[in-house]
Amino acid sequence: MATRKLQVGVAGLGRMGKRHALNYLQAVPRAQLVAVSTPDPDERAWARANLPGVAVYEHYEQLVHHPRLEAVCVASATAVHAQQAIAAIEAGKHVLCEKPLATTAETSQTVVDAAARHRQLKVMCGFSRRFDESYRDAHAKAQAGLIGRPSVFRSQTCDMLDPSGFFVAYAQFSGGIFVDCSIHDIDLALWFFGEEGDDKVRSVSAVGITAVEPGLREWKDRDNAVGLVEFAHGRIAHLYCSRMMAAGQEDTTEIIGTKGKLTVNTQPTANLVRVHEPGGIRHEVPQTYWDRFKDAFTTEAIEFVDCCLDDKPVPIKLDTAVAAVRIAAALQESMITGNKIWFDDKGERTEKKAEV
Amino acid sequence: MATRKLQVGVAGLGRMGKRHALNYLQAVPRAQLVAVSTPDPDERAWARANLPGVAVYEHYEQLVHHPRLEAVCVASATAVHAQQAIAAIEAGKHVLCEKPLATTAETSQTVVDAAARHRQLKVMCGFSRRFDESYRDAHAKAQAGLIGRPSVFRSQTCDMLDPSGFFVAYAQFSGGIFVDCSIHDIDLALWFFGEEGDDKVRSVSAVGITAVEPGLREWKDRDNAVGLVEFAHGRIAHLYCSRMMAAGQEDTTEIIGTKGKLTVNTQPTANLVRVHEPGGIRHEVPQTYWDRFKDAFTTEAIEFVDCCLDDKPVPIKLDTAVAAVRIAAALQESMITGNKIWFDDKGERTEKKAEV
Amino acid sequence: MATRKLQVGVAGLGRMGKRHALNYLQAVPRAQLVAVSTPDPDERAWARANLPGVAVYEHYEQLVHHPRLEAVCVASATAVHAQQAIAAIEAGKHVLCEKPLATTAETSQTVVDAAARHRQLKVMCGFSRRFDESYRDAHAKAQAGLIGRPSVFRSQTCDMLDPSGFFVAYAQFSGGIFVDCSIHDIDLALWFFGEEGDDKVRSVSAVGITAVEPGLREWKDRDNAVGLVEFAHGRIAHLYCSRMMAAGQEDTTEIIGTKGKLTVNTQPTANLVRVHEPGGIRHEVPQTYWDRFKDAFTTEAIEFVDCCLDDKPVPIKLDTAVAAVRIAAALQESMITGNKIWFDDKGERTEKKAEV
Amino acid sequence: MATRKLQVGVAGLGRMGKRHALNYLQAVPRAQLVAVSTPDPDERAWARANLPGVAVYEHYEQLVHHPRLEAVCVASATAVHAQQAIAAIEAGKHVLCEKPLATTAETSQTVVDAAARHRQLKVMCGFSRRFDESYRDAHAKAQAGLIGRPSVFRSQTCDMLDPSGFFVAYAQFSGGIFVDCSIHDIDLALWFFGEEGDDKVRSVSAVGITAVEPGLREWKDRDNAVGLVEFAHGRIAHLYCSRMMAAGQEDTTEIIGTKGKLTVNTQPTANLVRVHEPGGIRHEVPQTYWDRFKDAFTTEAIEFVDCCLDDKPVPIKLDTAVAAVRIAAALQESMITGNKIWFDDKGERTEKKAEV
Repeated sequence: MATRKLQVGVAGLGRMGKRHALNYLQAVPRAQLVAVSTPDPDERAWARANLPGVAVYEHYEQLVHHPRLEAVCVASATAVHAQQAIAAIEAGKHVLCEKPLATTAETSQTVVDAAARHRQLKVMCGFSRRFDESYRDAHAKAQAGLIGRPSVFRSQTCDMLDPSGFFVAYAQFSGGIFVDCSIHDIDLALWFFGEEGDDKVRSVSAVGITAVEPGLREWKDRDNAVGLVEFAHGRIAHLYCSRMMAAGQEDTTEIIGTKGKLTVNTQPTANLVRVHEPGGIRHEVPQTYWDRFKDAFTTEAIEFVDCCLDDKPVPIKLDTAVAAVRIAAALQESMITGNKIWFDDKGERTEKKAEV
Repeated sequence: MATRKLQVGVAGLGRMGKRHALNYLQAVPRAQLVAVSTPDPDERAWARANLPGVAVYEHYEQLVHHPRLEAVCVASATAVHAQQAIAAIEAGKHVLCEKPLATTAETSQTVVDAAARHRQLKVMCGFSRRFDESYRDAHAKAQAGLIGRPSVFRSQTCDMLDPSGFFVAYAQFSGGIFVDCSIHDIDLALWFFGEEGDDKVRSVSAVGITAVEPGLREWKDRDNAVGLVEFAHGRIAHLYCSRMMAAGQEDTTEIIGTKGKLTVNTQPTANLVRVHEPGGIRHEVPQTYWDRFKDAFTTEAIEFVDCCLDDKPVPIKLDTAVAAVRIAAALQESMITGNKIWFDDKGERTEKKAEV
Repeated sequence: MATRKLQVGVAGLGRMGKRHALNYLQAVPRAQLVAVSTPDPDERAWARANLPGVAVYEHYEQLVHHPRLEAVCVASATAVHAQQAIAAIEAGKHVLCEKPLATTAETSQTVVDAAARHRQLKVMCGFSRRFDESYRDAHAKAQAGLIGRPSVFRSQTCDMLDPSGFFVAYAQFSGGIFVDCSIHDIDLALWFFGEEGDDKVRSVSAVGITAVEPGLREWKDRDNAVGLVEFAHGRIAHLYCSRMMAAGQEDTTEIIGTKGKLTVNTQPTANLVRVHEPGGIRHEVPQTYWDRFKDAFTTEAIEFVDCCLDDKPVPIKLDTAVAAVRIAAALQESMITGNKIWFDDKGERTEKKAEV
Repeated sequence: MATRKLQVGVAGLGRMGKRHALNYLQAVPRAQLVAVSTPDPDERAWARANLPGVAVYEHYEQLVHHPRLEAVCVASATAVHAQQAIAAIEAGKHVLCEKPLATTAETSQTVVDAAARHRQLKVMCGFSRRFDESYRDAHAKAQAGLIGRPSVFRSQTCDMLDPSGFFVAYAQFSGGIFVDCSIHDIDLALWFFGEEGDDKVRSVSAVGITAVEPGLREWKDRDNAVGLVEFAHGRIAHLYCSRMMAAGQEDTTEIIGTKGKLTVNTQPTANLVRVHEPGGIRHEVPQTYWDRFKDAFTTEAIEFVDCCLDDKPVPIKLDTAVAAVRIAAALQESMITGNKIWFDDKGERTEKKAEV
């Protein structure tokens, strides 16, 4: 008996794209990686060397029209996420799109609209943390009522300092630190606070600094920022994002409820080893986002493939990806202008403060 | 040889006053507790039973004029801190005043002014955390350059939920959660960011909720709040205060610098015991602020007494207490009005955003 | 291009066998699970339901003679490990045998002898911990000289209490708690102390109790035991094994060197979640050996398959499995007789103490 | 009102003696330090400079006959503990003697015998860990039944490596590593297993090495050792002692019961600070036994003084000190001879194994 496998393509072979491609090749039993595409010749050379039996294309259109293709993992630059996702949807392919769908809510919404016209397709934005076993355990415990009503949410996405200047160049296209990093935390806030309509935002405010990389100011970005998000019905999220961690990737979350608190990763650690040495006891920290969440990426891929093959709903609503970008972009704006931004009950911007 | 001992009085015998009195009685070798005062007859009865050899007064004036008295520890209600401190100063006594000096910067300043007229006296606001050995270790490491330039400061003062409703009644006089709780974190931010003038605040904004005690709204207070403080020269503090921790007192601080990060108490713990039991591994958490910082209170008393006896400068500038209240009160106002509050270069309120 | 896959069979479908079978089916990209065998009809029913496309046999002989079979994973009862391993070797199959090869060194040696007659085959005893990323990190750090000369080794294998009485019945066949549990720790000691001949044992002594399950005495076993192993050249291992952990699986190791110490899992934890609740802060612990080491089992399978397909030496010498059983069986004997057992320079038992 | 204070003398002003003296001078409110004695002129000079108002003697006899003296803290070299304790008892003084009473059970017993002739006096051996708040919390939890019946006890006393060679010279008089270090762990085992007669030892065995200091062999000592103690009624203690910790003082204990486990200090830490830096997250460890247990020494002194002044029984039975030395000395002997040592039901040595 031959088990049917989903025929998958990966668009983009940058840092994340390479990992997604290898993931589908090696770690997703019900998927077969059939094709990849990238405009970069070096990346195509890498693909020919490392992805045996997989078609390698220069143009995304070639990938989308591969004869056996059933699903696309969009892992290209953020700037083309939305158009590639829409092109795949219109060609009748399932889509798993790396976060964010776009750097604006408006463009993100065009992906939702396209998906709405093809309801038979599975379209999901890859908020990888939802597939991490620690976050899942915390969410299950919160759902079970262990901490009462989740009321205050603190979360951070903090990258290790990359002294190469990469993240300055990257800032030009990333949408800024809140859109690039805090989008994960915002998605988690929406997940823990409930996606049933009471997640409406009343205000956001943010401040940011350039502690290590003043060049970011040219792109209206910062290397450290803190944001406050006031939700309706008495809920608050506060978010920290940074590009200058010395020890490694430090992504930490606390969910504070009326009867208890859940934390995820308050003490980051790479593994279970501790080194006792002159100066004290030391442990290492994951160096990158991938190091921290590589198992979550595998789970995400496996579950997305299951949804496609078994025609089940995807675990993350696509609307959430638009809501998350809207909040992230407002935080980014608040950080740059210094203004607090208000929203009314319909989610529209307003000048007046909503009554508390 | 008889070692000379500082003759100390304690004003107020509420929760903290009792502890201060016992501390001077038992744990400060160079001090002698000679008198206490409190308007509460039950507290005076407690004093007569528990403070052998100590004069017990109803009126603060009696305490101040005790013939041998040299120094006063003001541990009464916040509302009378300033007037009692000033009365002691004017009577020529050294003063250690519990935080805050007052709930407004203006009233706090009157204590500074009184002290300025009696420079021979030691007058200090008791920011106990500065005497905690962990905070001191962190500060010494930061001063030594271990983390580069401190740039982002996160700190929280979170009390265990007291279901008796105590903190609702208390809110009437406390100045609010930022003035009562976050004042510690603000003082720490000023300490770690440096007190040499570059601690000027550019803006504050805050949000708060009443997750467990709606009655707080009557007193314009909240039970959970988050505040952002933007300092000059590219520094940020973000603060969380809460009255609803399930496990105990959770006071945590992170100081993030350009080359590293220092944390204090990211995993609160009462002691070194771990209980392995069905359900996992558990450890207890200090139940109160006193449980967490009792050694710091002792150190504070010992060092204050040393300063008085040896005529050394006190370790915390009195001006800092005013600066901390100013920031705390602004956060409290921002939390209630919803407005972001701006300050100009001279520390005056301003309507316009300072240019970044 | 079709990648060649190793054709694998799994013998035994008890607790571990099921997991091995699913592992090869789903998580080892270069393997294809072609057949399984078990005398138990319920287990065969499970296999038909859960292992699509896989041949299911009653008799091990059928498995070994499956026409496409290239490698066997022996996961049956310990009592038949050796004979099944030898049968596979003699049929020209690669073998990954669950630990221990046998409950005696003599029988274990017969597998080594069989393998020696078929040097083209890959034969490995599955000491899963060597494939765990934390143990590997610790070993790499020790090899790099981070702790000087490893001199004292402490390790424990402690199972969660299973109140069903399973482990009493199991004791009849397991070889006893040192052979069943501590064999892992012994293998690790040999790994960290070096397998180049200086791992010779000079003496062993052990004590054991039946704290929760007196029925174990019938099978000359205990539910908690501690053993001391004195190696040549000034090295000591001390080992603890238990069947009565309340919180979960607690497998901890310390390697103490002349310049530092490495620890693995001194604070067992299931994931990165912490629950703050009345009573303190709690975290969960893996419930079973599989929960703790499931990734290691996958890595073990992947690397064994790589060795078979690419004709590389297996990462664990087969001789080590014999040495480990010899030590474990001596500890078991010492625990039961109360006698300290001595070995001479050739590894033979001796009555006299070797001179130190 | 003048509170009566116990008039205390301290014999010996080495490392520990200095600390005891300062403790009584500064941190024990109900004690007055009146005299100290030491044969060492440098130590007497230190005393004159640092102990204002305290008589400083060369000869212990002078101390004992100080006119106001009521109690002696014996903190001199182990070799004179017993004779100094007995001299004080016979002079009618209360005695707190540093551990061990002596390096043999026989000499230790002479102190017990002297105390038995003066029942009005308080005589206690200073097992400081019993006064540590973490050990006390663990013991209270065990007494409350939290872990069922304590059955296996693991404990270690591990000093930081002192490269000065101090501990080689010290070995000449210390009684050896088990008597000097593990005596604490043995006392704890007796405390947790109960002192009501079911703490009888059936056998001990031990092994030791000289990993860093071969010179210890001259004094029949080792720098790392592991011991097994088999108690009656199905209880085991295993002990590790070391002189070569790189990070600091690492004293860890686990008490494993039939329903749970308590641990003390599985992750040694100096305070609540964590340093995030390139290479990971680091925390410091207490450097010395005093650093780890200084609060316990204060509590010990305070409680001993209370017992003297209030005529209450001391919290540790003096007999326990003899039992602990007996076990420690047997472990030391076993480590050197390589022989397992057996005891019969009366605690006498026996050649034959007692029946289990």
